[in-house]
This record gives sequence, C-alpha cells and structure tokens, in this order.
Amino acid sequence: MLHNPARFKPSPIEDDSEENDDELEFYDFNEPEPGSPPGTLIIDEDSAIPNIFLIDYNADEALGVQLATPEDCFPYLDSHSVSWVDVQGLGSEEVLKRLGKVFGLHELVLEDIVNIPQRPKVESFEDQELIILHMVTSREDGRGFYDEQVSLILGKNYILTVQEEPENDVFEPIRQRIHRNRGVIRSQKADYLAYALIDAIVDGFFPVLEDYGERLEDLQDEVVENPTRQTLDKIHKIKRELLLLRRAIWPQRDAINSLIREESPLIDREVRVFLRDCYDHTVQVMDMVETYRELAANLMDIYLSSLSNSTNEIMRFLTVISTVFIPLTFVSGVYGMNFDTDIPWNMPELKMPLGYPFFWLVIMSISGGLLFYFWKKGWLFSPK
Amino acid sequence: MLHNPARFKPSPIEDDSEENDDELEFYDFNEPEPGSPPGTLIIDEDSAIPNIFLIDYNADEALGVQLATPEDCFPYLDSHSVSWVDVQGLGSEEVLKRLGKVFGLHELVLEDIVNIPQRPKVESFEDQELIILHMVTSREDGRGFYDEQVSLILGKNYILTVQEEPENDVFEPIRQRIHRNRGVIRSQKADYLAYALIDAIVDGFFPVLEDYGERLEDLQDEVVENPTRQTLDKIHKIKRELLLLRRAIWPQRDAINSLIREESPLIDREVRVFLRDCYDHTVQVMDMVETYRELAANLMDIYLSSLSNSTNEIMRFLTVISTVFIPLTFVSGVYGMNFDTDIPWNMPELKMPLGYPFFWLVIMSISGGLLFYFWKKGWLFSPK
Amino acid sequence: MLHNPARFKPSPIEDDSEENDDELEFYDFNEPEPGSPPGTLIIDEDSAIPNIFLIDYNADEALGVQLATPEDCFPYLDSHSVSWVDVQGLGSEEVLKRLGKVFGLHELVLEDIVNIPQRPKVESFEDQELIILHMVTSREDGRGFYDEQVSLILGKNYILTVQEEPENDVFEPIRQRIHRNRGVIRSQKADYLAYALIDAIVDGFFPVLEDYGERLEDLQDEVVENPTRQTLDKIHKIKRELLLLRRAIWPQRDAINSLIREESPLIDREVRVFLRDCYDHTVQVMDMVETYRELAANLMDIYLSSLSNSTNEIMRFLTVISTVFIPLTFVSGVYGMNFDTDIPWNMPELKMPLGYPFFWLVIMSISGGLLFYFWKKGWLFSPK
Amino acid sequence: MLHNPARFKPSPIEDDSEENDDELEFYDFNEPEPGSPPGTLIIDEDSAIPNIFLIDYNADEALGVQLATPEDCFPYLDSHSVSWVDVQGLGSEEVLKRLGKVFGLHELVLEDIVNIPQRPKVESFEDQELIILHMVTSREDGRGFYDEQVSLILGKNYILTVQEEPENDVFEPIRQRIHRNRGVIRSQKADYLAYALIDAIVDGFFPVLEDYGERLEDLQDEVVENPTRQTLDKIHKIKRELLLLRRAIWPQRDAINSLIREESPLIDREVRVFLRDCYDHTVQVMDMVETYRELAANLMDIYLSSLSNSTNEIMRFLTVISTVFIPLTFVSGVYGMNFDTDIPWNMPELKMPLGYPFFWLVIMSISGGLLFYFWKKGWLFSPK
Amino acid sequence: MLHNPARFKPSPIEDDSEENDDELEFYDFNEPEPGSPPGTLIIDEDSAIPNIFLIDYNADEALGVQLATPEDCFPYLDSHSVSWVDVQGLGSEEVLKRLGKVFGLHELVLEDIVNIPQRPKVESFEDQELIILHMVTSREDGRGFYDEQVSLILGKNYILTVQEEPENDVFEPIRQRIHRNRGVIRSQKADYLAYALIDAIVDGFFPVLEDYGERLEDLQDEVVENPTRQTLDKIHKIKRELLLLRRAIWPQRDAINSLIREESPLIDREVRVFLRDCYDHTVQVMDMVETYRELAANLMDIYLSSLSNSTNEIMRFLTVISTVFIPLTFVSGVYGMNFDTDIPWNMPELKMPLGYPFFWLVIMSISGGLLFYFWKKGWLFSPK
Repeated sequence: MLHNPARFKPSPIEDDSEENDDELEFYDFNEPEPGSPPGTLIIDEDSAIPNIFLIDYNADEALGVQLATPEDCFPYLDSHSVSWVDVQGLGSEEVLKRLGKVFGLHELVLEDIVNIPQRPKVESFEDQELIILHMVTSREDGRGFYDEQVSLILGKNYILTVQEEPENDVFEPIRQRIHRNRGVIRSQKADYLAYALIDAIVDGFFPVLEDYGERLEDLQDEVVENPTRQTLDKIHKIKRELLLLRRAIWPQRDAINSLIREESPLIDREVRVFLRDCYDHTVQVMDMVETYRELAANLMDIYLSSLSNSTNEIMRFLTVISTVFIPLTFVSGVYGMNFDTDIPWNMPELKMPLGYPFFWLVIMSISGGLLFYFWKKGWLFSPK
Repeated sequence: MLHNPARFKPSPIEDDSEENDDELEFYDFNEPEPGSPPGTLIIDEDSAIPNIFLIDYNADEALGVQLATPEDCFPYLDSHSVSWVDVQGLGSEEVLKRLGKVFGLHELVLEDIVNIPQRPKVESFEDQELIILHMVTSREDGRGFYDEQVSLILGKNYILTVQEEPENDVFEPIRQRIHRNRGVIRSQKADYLAYALIDAIVDGFFPVLEDYGERLEDLQDEVVENPTRQTLDKIHKIKRELLLLRRAIWPQRDAINSLIREESPLIDREVRVFLRDCYDHTVQVMDMVETYRELAANLMDIYLSSLSNSTNEIMRFLTVISTVFIPLTFVSGVYGMNFDTDIPWNMPELKMPLGYPFFWLVIMSISGGLLFYFWKKGWLFSPK
Repeated sequence: MLHNPARFKPSPIEDDSEENDDELEFYDFNEPEPGSPPGTLIIDEDSAIPNIFLIDYNADEALGVQLATPEDCFPYLDSHSVSWVDVQGLGSEEVLKRLGKVFGLHELVLEDIVNIPQRPKVESFEDQELIILHMVTSREDGRGFYDEQVSLILGKNYILTVQEEPENDVFEPIRQRIHRNRGVIRSQKADYLAYALIDAIVDGFFPVLEDYGERLEDLQDEVVENPTRQTLDKIHKIKRELLLLRRAIWPQRDAINSLIREESPLIDREVRVFLRDCYDHTVQVMDMVETYRELAANLMDIYLSSLSNSTNEIMRFLTVISTVFIPLTFVSGVYGMNFDTDIPWNMPELKMPLGYPFFWLVIMSISGGLLFYFWKKGWLFSPK
Repeated sequence: MLHNPARFKPSPIEDDSEENDDELEFYDFNEPEPGSPPGTLIIDEDSAIPNIFLIDYNADEALGVQLATPEDCFPYLDSHSVSWVDVQGLGSEEVLKRLGKVFGLHELVLEDIVNIPQRPKVESFEDQELIILHMVTSREDGRGFYDEQVSLILGKNYILTVQEEPENDVFEPIRQRIHRNRGVIRSQKADYLAYALIDAIVDGFFPVLEDYGERLEDLQDEVVENPTRQTLDKIHKIKRELLLLRRAIWPQRDAINSLIREESPLIDREVRVFLRDCYDHTVQVMDMVETYRELAANLMDIYLSSLSNSTNEIMRFLTVISTVFIPLTFVSGVYGMNFDTDIPWNMPELKMPLGYPFFWLVIMSISGGLLFYFWKKGWLFSPK
Repeated sequence: MLHNPARFKPSPIEDDSEENDDELEFYDFNEPEPGSPPGTLIIDEDSAIPNIFLIDYNADEALGVQLATPEDCFPYLDSHSVSWVDVQGLGSEEVLKRLGKVFGLHELVLEDIVNIPQRPKVESFEDQELIILHMVTSREDGRGFYDEQVSLILGKNYILTVQEEPENDVFEPIRQRIHRNRGVIRSQKADYLAYALIDAIVDGFFPVLEDYGERLEDLQDEVVENPTRQTLDKIHKIKRELLLLRRAIWPQRDAINSLIREESPLIDREVRVFLRDCYDHTVQVMDMVETYRELAANLMDIYLSSLSNSTNEIMRFLTVISTVFIPLTFVSGVYGMNFDTDIPWNMPELKMPLGYPFFWLVIMSISGGLLFYFWKKGWLFSPK
C-alpha cells in the first residue's frame, strides 16, 4: 500500500508578520562565523523539525511511509528497488548529522545542504552526485514567490532530497505518477527519478513567470495612464524580485549543463537526452527573466517620461493662466491709480464717456491675442 | 498532376478582438504542469485542426495532395522520391500523436513540436534532424508581426514541417518552384529542400525589418518635431516588438550554425555551402535588429530631451511675461494708494502736472530694460 | 601604353534630391523575396551600367583598357601577368551573369556580389578567395560618408573587384603606383595587389574618422556654450552615422583576421605579414569608432545637463523677481484699500505726515532683505 | 604551553582624524618611483613595526610565542611540526628584508608583500606558493569596512602570513582551533592550515555584506519616504564602497581558482576539495556584491524619480493656488479702477445695490469652477 | 667616462598656444593617404630632429655618448656589451630611414615607429622583437597628461628605443642605475634592460593615476557642495582623459602578455618572471582606470541629481512666497474696490470701526495657516 506523504504536511502558516519576506532573501544567509571548521552546521531555529518521507518502488509495487529516524532508511537502501528519501525541514542538527552518516555524506556536502542558501551547483563524488537547485513557487497572496533550496543526492539506487520547509514543493505530481504508475517512471532507475525531480523544479519557474508577465502588463497600463508614487514602488519591487529570480536560475543552467557533460556513471545515456530537454527549458526561463528585466527597465523609463510629461502639462496650464491675467491685472491697476485727474494730462481716459467699455476692449484684445498665440503653439490643449 | 495546397488555406481571419495580440507573445507559453511526465502535450483549444499537405517530387514529376490521416503518408515515405509533409495547425492531440508514430518521433520531439513556443534549436537523432525555427511575417494592419514556430524533421528522403497555424507561411514560393520546376530544387534531395525552407524562413525577416525601418524613420520625425504622449507609447511598443524579434533571431543563429558544424550524414557537403549563406543572412538580420534597438533607445533619449526642451521654452515664456509685468503692477499699485496727499510728503507725484506721462515713462523704461536683458540672454525667441 | 581608367569615370552627380541619403542605408537592402531560389539577383534600377576596366601588368610593362564585354577578359586571364578586372556599377543582370561565367563564380558568390549590402566576410573556394569589404569615403558636403560594398575575387593570377558605383573609389593611388611603377607592386603577384587594395580600403576610414573628430569637437563647444534643438539633432545624427560606421568596420576585422589565419594557398606567407599590418589598422579604426561613440554619448549627457542648468537659471531668475515684488505689491495694495479713515483704527498710516516715505522705507527693507538672502544663496548671479 | 598572540595586540586606535578613511583606499598605493630597480620596498611611515608571532603544532602539542627577530624562526622551520609565522605590520624595511632572507623569498615576492595594495593573485615558485588576498572586516562605527592585504607564503611545513596591521584580523578562531584542538586541524599539514586561513578570509566578507544589506534596506525606506541631499550622499557612498568591495573580491576568485587548478605539489588532493568549497563561497560573495551594486543603482533611479515626483507636486500646488487667485485679483482690480462713474457707461456695477454680493458670486463661481477642473484633473490631492 | 645623455635634453617648451592639447590626441593620427605603398613615412613637421643617444655597458664599465649619425652605432652593435640606442624625436625622414637600415628594420616596422600613434603591440621577427608601448607622464600644469609612443626594438645584444619627443621620458632613473651601477642591471643582458624600460613605462602610469585620484576627490566635494557649469566641464574633461588613458593601457596588457607567452628566444626565462610582475602592474593600472571611470560616471549622476535638487529647492521657495502672498494681495484688492458704500450691502466692512484690524487678522490667519501647512510638508526649510 502506497502512503501519500503529502497528507503529513502541516498546513501553510499565514505569516502576516513577515511583511517584507521577499526582501529578506537578499540579506539573509546562514554562514558560519569566519574561521569555523568546515562542516559547521548553522541551524535556523525557526526552521521546521525534519520530516523524513520514503517512497520505495519498482516496476511492480510502490510503498510510501514516513520514517521516524534516519536510520530507518537502511533496509530500503539495500534493496534493489529505487528509494526516494525526502527530508522536509532543517530544524534539527542531530537528525541532519545522523542523516549524513546514513548516506555517507562528506562534511562539506552536509554543510552545503544545511547552511542555506547555496548557489545551485553540481558536484561529483565517488558514488554520489550532489545537485543543489532552487525551487520557486508562487505565493498565494501574489506578493512575489517562495525560493527554497532543494539538495538532491543521487546514488546508485536511491535519491535523497532535502528541502528547507515542509510546505510548497512541486514534487506532488511525481509522487502521484509513482503512486498511480503513470508514464514510465516506475520501470526506470534512480537517475530517471532525478531527471523527473529536476524537470519539476525547472518547470516550476513557468507559473511564477506567468504571474510576473501579468503583473508587468498591469503595471504597463498603470504607468502610461495614471503613474503615481505607488507605481514607482511596484516597478522597483518587481525589479528586485526579478533580480532574485535571475540569481536563482543563472547558476542552475550551469549546474544542469555540467550534469549533462560530466558523463557521470550514475546517469544513463538515455536519461541524458531528457536532461538536455531540461536544459532547454532552463535556457528558456533565463530568456524570459532577461526579457522581463528589460521590460521592467523600460517601465522605469516610461515612468520618468510620464512624470516629465505631467510637469510639462502643469507648467503649460500655469503659464497660460498667469500670462493671460498678469497683463490684465496691470492694466486694471493703472486705472486704479489716484493721479489728480483735474490736471489735463493725468489719465484723461477715466473721464472719457466710453472709457470703461474701451478698457474691456483692450482687455479682450490682449487676452484674445495671447490665447491665439497659445493655441498656435499648441499649449492650450494637452496633447493626449 | 500537382495540386497546389495553398488553395486549401482558409482566408486569414480579421481578429479585431485581439487588440494586444503582440503583447500576449511575451507571456503565453504552453508548458505542461510542473511534474508532468515528459511527452505531455498541451493542446491550445483555439488552435486549428491540423491539415496535412503532401508534396512528393523527383526530377521528373511532382504531386501535391491533402491527406486525410497521418497514416496516408506511408506509401509516399517508402518511395525514392522526396516527400514534404506539411502539417498546419496544432489543434488535435490525437492526430499529432498518430503523426508522431508515423514518423517515429521521440516523445520529447513531439513535445517540442506541440508545446509552443520553444526556442529555436537543432537536435540530432539517429536518422532524423529536428530543426525548430521561428517564422515571422508582417501583419497587414502594420501592428507588429506574426511569430509562428515551424518545426522541421529532416529524414533520409522526407521532410516533415509542422506549423502553428494554416495562415501566413513563407513557403508558397518554394511550392511554386517545385510545381513549376524552377531552379534545381526538383533534382535535389531532401536536404536541399530543408535548406530552401530554412532560407525562406530567414529571408522572411527582411520584409518585417523593412517595416520597422520605416516606422523608426517616421517616429524619428515625430519625436523631433512634435513629441506627444502617443510618441512615447509608440517608442515603447517598437522597443517591445524589437525585443521579441531579437528573441526569435538570436537562438536561430546558433541553431543554423550547429547544423553546419555538426556534420550530420543527412546533410550533403554541397548543401552545407548553401546553409553557410543562410547563416550569413541570419547574422545580417541580427545586426539589423541590434541596430534598430539602438536607434529606438536613442529615440527615447531624444524624446526626453525634447520634453526638457519644451519645459524650458514654456518656463522661459512664463518668466519673460511675469517678470516684465510684476514690477509694473507694483508701480501702478503704488500710485493707487490712498495716502492723504494734502500732507506734502505723501505722494506728491499724484499732483504733478506730468505725473501720469512720467509714470508711463517709468513703466516703459522698466519693461524695455527687462526685455533688452532677456533679448541679450536669448530668452525672447525660441532657439528653433 | 597604360590607359588610366579613372578618365572614364562620369563626374559625380550632385544628388540634392536625396536629402537623407545616409538614413536610407539603415533601411535599404536588396534581398530577394523570401523563398526565391539561391542565386536570384536583385538589380537596383538606379544603379549604373557596369563598366569593365582591366589593368594587366608584370614587372616590365603595364596595360590599362576598358573592356566592352566580360568575355574580353579571357585573353588576359590566361597570360602569366597579373590581371586586375575592376567592374564599376551593378546595373545589368546580363553583364553580371556573363561576368560570373567568365570567372567561374558560384551562384551564391554572385548573389553576394550583386545583392548589396552584405556584411564584410571572407569565403574560401577551391581556387578563389571571396573577400567582401565596405569602402567608405567622405562626402564633399560634410553630410556623413558614402558606404560602398567592394567584392574582391582573388584568383591565381587575377583579381576581380566589383564596386557598387563608378564614383568615389580609393583605388586611384594604386592605379598610379602600377602605372608609374612606384614601390614594388609591379614585381609582385596578385596576392600583393589584393593586400594593396584591402589596405587602401581600410586606410580610407581614417579621413572619414578625421571628419567626425572635427565635427565632435565643434559639437562639444556648441553643447557647452549654446545648446539648441539643432544641437540635439546633430548629436543624434552623429550617433546614427557612427553606428553605421561601426557596422561597417566590425565584421571587417573578422574578415581580415580569417584571411590571415586561414592559410589559403593563394596568399603568400610574406604577404600575410602585410595583411597583419592591415589588421592592426582595422583594430585602430574600431578603437577610434568606439571612442567617438562614447564621446557622442557623453555629449548627449552634457546636453541634458545643460538643459537642466538652463531651466535652473530661468527658474532662479523668475523666483528672484517674483518673490521680491509680490510682497511689495501686497503692501502697496494694503494702502490702496478704502477703509473709512475717519474711524481712528482704520489705517491711520494714511494720514501720518511721513506715511509715504515710511512706506518706501518698508518696501526697501523688504526687498533689500530678500535680495541679501538671494545673494547669500548664490541665486543672484548665474554660476558661470 | 600555548601562548595566545592575540594578547599582544594593541587596542585599536580610535582614529577620528581620518574622516574619509575609506576614500583614501581608492587613491593610495605604494608604488616605487617609475624606473626603480625591482625589489625596491616602500615603507609607509605610519605603519606599525612588525610583530612576529609563531604557532608551532603537531597532533600532540601546540606552542605559541612572539619572536623578537625573524631569525628566531629557524629552529621551528626545520622541525617536522607545522609552523605558522604571522607577521603583523609593515613598518620596518630591515625586519622585512631579514624576513625575506629567512624564508628565501624572491625579491619580487617581497615587493608584492610590502608595497601594498596588490591585486589578489597566486604565484607558484619552486617550493613555495605565494597567495595574496584581501581581508575585509567591518568597522565598529558602521562607516564602511577595513580592507587589509594578507600575503600567505605556503611552504612544505610552514606558512608565513604577512598582514598590514596588527588589528582586525579574522584568524582568531583558527588560533583557538589550534590551541584547543578543535576539529581536525592539528592532525593536518600546512596546506590544510592554508585552506583554513583562506576560508576565514573569504567567509570574513559575509558579515561585511550583511552590514551593507541592512544599510541598503534602510536607505531604500529613506529614498521612498523622505529623500534628502543626505540620501544622495549615502547612496553615492555605498556605491563607492561596493565598488571597492568588488575590486577586492573579483581577482580573489581567479586566485583561488588557479590554486585549485594548478596542481601544486604543496597542496594535497584532499585539501583541494576544501578549496573548491572556498571557491564556491567566493562566487557567492561576488554574486551578492553584484546584486547589491544593482540594488544601489536602482536606488539612484528611485531617488531621481522621487525628486521629479516632488517637483511635480510642488508645481501642482503652486499652479492650483496661483491660477485660482490670479483671475480673482484681476476682477477685484477692475472694481478698484477710478473711472468717473458719473458717466453712465463707466462701471455702473459700482452703484448697483447688490454689486458687492454679486462680485462675490462671480468670485465664487470662478474659483469653484477652477477647483472643480483641478479636482477632475487629479491635481488637488497628492497621489500618495 | 660615462656621459649622461640627459644633459643634452632641451628644456621643455612652454607651449601655451596649444590650449586643448589633450583633445588633439583623439583626433590626430599620422596615417599615409589611403592607397600609399607600405612603408610610407609621415613626418610631422613640428616634430623635433632626432637626437641619438647611446649607452653601452657591461658588468665592468658603461659609456654614454650622443651620436651624430645612425651609422655611428655600428661599432657598438658588434661588441659583446649591451648597447642601448635611444632616439628622441621623429623630425627627419632621412635619419629615420638610415636608422632603419642600420638596424635592419622591416619597412612596416619603420612605418609603425614613425607614423604615430599606433596601438601598443608586440611583433616577433626573426632576430628582433618590436614592442610598441605608450608612455604617459603628468603635465606640470595639471591639465591632463602627455601620451608619447615609445617603440622598443629588442635585438640580441642591443635595444633601440624611439621616442616621439626629447622631453618627458621616464627612463632617467634607469640611466642612473646603469651609470651608478645600482642593482643588477649592469650584469644582465639586453632582455633585462628591455624589462627595466617596460617596467618604467608601466609604473609611469601610477603618478598620473594619483593625479586623477586627487582631481576626482576634489570634484566630488565640488559636485556635492557647489555644482556649477564649470563642474560639468571638469567632469566631462576627466571622463575624456580617462578614456584616453584607457585606450593607452588596454592593448598594453595584451602586448605584455603576448611577450610573456610567446617564448621568444631573445627573452630569458628568468626575465620572464620579471615581466609577469610588469603584467600584474598593468592589470592593476587597468583596474584603477576602470574604477576611476566608474567614479566619474557616478559624479555625472550626482551632478544631475544636485541640479534637480536645486531646481526643487528654488521651486519650493517660489511656491512658498507666491502662495502666501497671492491670496493676501487678493484680499487687499477687494478692499480697494470702489463700490458705492452708501448702498448698505456694498462692502459694509469698510465702515466698521475695527475693519482694518480685522483685515489684518484675516491676513494673519491666512498666511499663518499656509505657513503651517508648508512647515508640515517640510517645504519651509531646505533638507540640508
């Protein structure tokens, strides 16, 4: 009977407190103190206690159980079936060290697995391949994405995967494929499972990218139609997040490429064809990220241009109103002067019978002339 | 009797509803769910039902028919003549899977053909070459271009091409060349046909580029002479579209280059000379696209400068009018004060016989002086 | 008797109609319709009818004639002397095709020669080297430069050069060197002649660059001292032209480099030393072009800064005048009010004996204070 | 008995006088006069007199002493235990030259050690490896970081390290590991010690980077919420410092990489695995620095946008107030004119019974209309 | 007796006429007419007549003389001692050609030496190495630097150096080292002398860089504290000069690198170690130049930000003053109207006993309210 390990997963916690969760990723890294001996593990105390799930399968049957201790793996590792040990959570130094012993991990490998985040990379050991990748998943609230390190250890007939947290993985469909015997996965070796997991991680970038595509499209309308200070924040935020995404995908390409080229005896020639497909997808993701980054940079330019445009329009309005009324005010000021009109040269206009209508005529001519001038200049109406 | 398959083509639908058709291309991709087994096909339900056209020719005769089912290809594939099977439309999973079986395609190859868009690439298989390219054609309405994936499978004596849609292909002249026996094409093998198709796809970029050349030239005049908010939109739009074009052509170069270098037994040495010519054209297209991108970036700079220039001019106008009239208004305000002129020190000017003419003299001097100052500064006339 | 072919050249036509001649170069290219068979020639109907000049020389004698038909070359090609066939003009498909037959050109070679512009490149054939270069010459009117494609076919004892137009070539000094037996050229083989021609084309970039150097220096003064809208246009124009120049010289470097490396049997080891010198000059030209492009980009920055500076200065002037007079106007407005001064609290100042002088004192203090403030701020005088 | 050399360290001097200490690093370098013979040492007179500390250990025991003269090293170098000679300070030419003699250093090596700063590099000599690295440590006052050159000479059974100054090194934990026999270090050779030192230097970048992460986060809030001139200074400062950090880490990567690749007999194959881990960390540091640099560049963009936004808002406020009151002032000016109202056409409004209330009605309508217009335009309230 | 050739040097001429001497370097190059035969020398008529200095030395003795003719070198070249022939000035074609004959130079080598400026490069000939470098020296007036081409010909037991001008070389200390027998130079071969000269040229960049470091530091203070139009000019000037410096140093690196790699028999393995040190210094110079260029680019950004800041501040001041006084002026204008106050509804305020004090109360409230609003907004005081 196959047990579905996903049922053990705790429901994702709504961590409202971490408002700027995505920003932290830039600045947090669990590096031991400079000068510490190699293999020093840094345990993040907020991290979940590791759950150990095992799926053991061959062409005929598949078994899924949660293990209590790392040492419970031993009977499965010795069998001829493929064993996938999936560890979720990095919260216990003791469990992780025992895990390292069970799988015979080099102290530096264990350090790479535990002291997250590491750059994606592939390292070959005598009878193991260490593959470190970053798995991204969309956030439900639309505020960016989760970036989680996944470490794969590929051995002769087993795979060990270590995830940062119990939530948000992209491996569920693979568990289903093994469980329901869909496709050829059950009849294949551990290397094919490794390919399937890597493929799921790489393809997991696409939904995240789709989110960003939509956000960029929305932002573009906003920038052109109604740019505000929030727009600037949003552009900046999207640029930061794409920067993060780029950092996650670039080294992934090199890692997968070296996996293809390195001709490890653990990976079959036929599976390498599938990995080449993975590589193509990674390049496609990189392409998208670079395109989105360029689009976001363009948005910044348009934002600035829109601002300049807006200042221009405001200035034009001020100029039209001011320059029309300022001369008029002067003229009215002239006739408000108190020169003694008994003296003949002093403002005889004030006593002329049609002085006031004539004043309005002057006013009309001046303002009319100026408005005509502005109309000719194209300053009267906003060039929508 | 040679049948002209172009006659089967439905007339292009005027899809007015898709206003931002070109934008979608950035964000849409038909990737299977992360974790799906390899070979999972994603059928876009808006896609046309595949039409299968066959052209079978040798030096002596040429035949063109539309086939009802993929299996109808079998008799032609076995013959010694060259068979070109052209499938237009990706709307039926069943037909595509049967097609895959007829031509013996790897499941990943079929996935690459169906789950569009893929990056242009070349992959070698035992007795087949998979060549994925992007074909662009100008839109009749001048709003950008159509970008369609074309997958070529080159076998020993056949070629399978799969297009996204029945409309807008660039292969018509080649059908005519086969039909009318123009040039050497009828006496050549399938590899020469592959070259001819690739060449047509690459050369198809030139008319699109010519459109962009004209649009850039128009935009340049507009930016310098009368920049408006629309201009900004247009520059942004052209930048986006050139970005798309660039994404289509860059990997094409690598694909064609690897085709030349790889020394596949399916491609004759002589045909490789022709492909080298194709490669040169691809590089030329890339060159043009990069040049246009730089020109578009320059336009953005000029747009911003023009805006600044315009703000400057408006400011200058406001400044001239304001600073001329504001002092005058003050002077007229002074003589509008109601100081008791019976007291001798209080505004004796009001009672002077030539007070009013003298007032105008003052006004004239002030405004004349300021205008002279502005004229010296060069603020009076716009530096056209 | 050596005939000087330059005498046949028609005088350059003053084509005033083509105002934006240099812009066309971005957008015009003679590509056959997509899908045309290889070797399709596109004849620009404005192009001149090809003139065929022949110079045949050895150490002892040199002969220069204009030939009526391509076939007239045959007797010279068979001789042991070096034959330089120089074709000027691409206006006749028939002549060009016959020329192709005379020299045994591959159909793609003929296409590259005729369907201008092609990117500079070198291609090796069995007993021929195709060298495509771009030759630039300064325009007499100072509006940019002419960019003409020159195709060289180097054979065992002959060279075929094909130029776009009869005017503006840089080969005259070489004709003179052959004619007057200057230097060692007469005693050398065809490969040395090829070097001499390539060297003349590369060195032809220097006078053009010198023009741009001068124009940049002039522009720099203009930008700093008196930036106008024209300045912006000029900067943009120079940037466009340098972009063109760059596109002409970059692939030239690769072409000459491959000529040196490829070890063609047609080029002597000793001549390769001379070509290395050519290569150095090409790199120097590229260096200059990149430097000029950076200088032009800097000019754009300075232009924008100058504009901002200018806006700043205008604003400062407006602010000084406005903020000095606006309070004064208010004060004068106060004493223009019509409060009933018979009531003791209502504006007793109006009846005070020294009210008016005191008013001026107030005015002076206010404006003096503001001016002092502005002087301290440094807003009074433009920071020249 | 193990002596802890850290106890000899003078307390760090609070050098308040060097306000722009971090700027000096850009401009100061101790290069001998051009034309000096190689090996010319430049002694900075502010530099501390060299202290020489020795730690000599094997698996069984460890000894730490301060040596009076370089020659005191001799007995330790000849033993089979690992000797780590740590020289702190570059203030005495004589001591350094004697040191060079004791360790048999090439004159150029001594020059590289003394004439700081040099670029990080690795050079192989017959029985020595010269490794020049830069060690950074956070400053206590938060004003940037200290950048100190550390030169390692790796010999068969000894390591010589030369530091610029006695303060601020990152080697203390390693001294403790040797002293307290933590980890495997005591049972390893000199190459492992070299790895441990290099690892400590590389990991020393992480706390510095963490500081910058926090500063960038603070700055980002400041830029968006309240950008001032200080903000500009801070962004500029952070950009300069990240530039310095980048200059320190980039060549470090190449240096460590060449150490791994070069296959020096002095470095064991097993230790090379550890160095590969070091290399990964260096790449990670570089990644962070580049990301931070991009974030800082983004901040500059946002700063400029915020300024434009602010100008816009001020302009809008000025425009609203001015354009509302300027027409009103004109109207009130009209009724302040002194036309002789006895003449019937001259301002009959002044004598109308409801003239004044009607005047206010006009005023209200005008200002109300303008305010409505502004409200529609969205100019009334800042788009927060 | 050793003659010190430096005594022959004419005192540097104060060429005040060449105000923009450093700009010329961008645009001047002595290239022969396109199409000239190879080896055509271009003599700049302002150039000095070549002086020929010879230093001939071995471990025992050293001799320094000025030679009258190139042919006077012959007796020294044949001896076993090292001969350094230093030619200063390029003003005589005849002397240079004779020099070419004496040293057996290829015509292209002579062209490279004479037709300055050439890009730095290294070319190997059978028994000679041509090394072309650029030597920079600070100008005494602080206006940039002198850039002079130095061509070194390294032969078996001689070195020929050709400098553009007699002034400003960096070789004096080397002459002194030979003269006074300092260091090992006297006991070494010609290759060591070549190293010493190259080293002096490379190290000669450091003082020039130090000048730029100081100028950048000064400029930075100026940009932040008091940016004027001059500041813009200075930034532009420094950017141009750094561009020049970059053009001089970049190819120098490649040149020295190829010298190390090429394994010329003329250069001893031991001397190659010294050249590697030279190479490190060149890379360090490049690093500095790139850093300075980035700093200069940053200064431009800060300049623009400072301008925007300044415009902002001016606008704020204008807005505060204008918007405070414009409503006040309106109010005072209202009470200056001449409505007939005998009619009861017409401006009864004018006759109220406390009308005037009440008017001031209104004025105070309005201006107080506005000032409070501005203070809250933070517009009252410049955010210093």
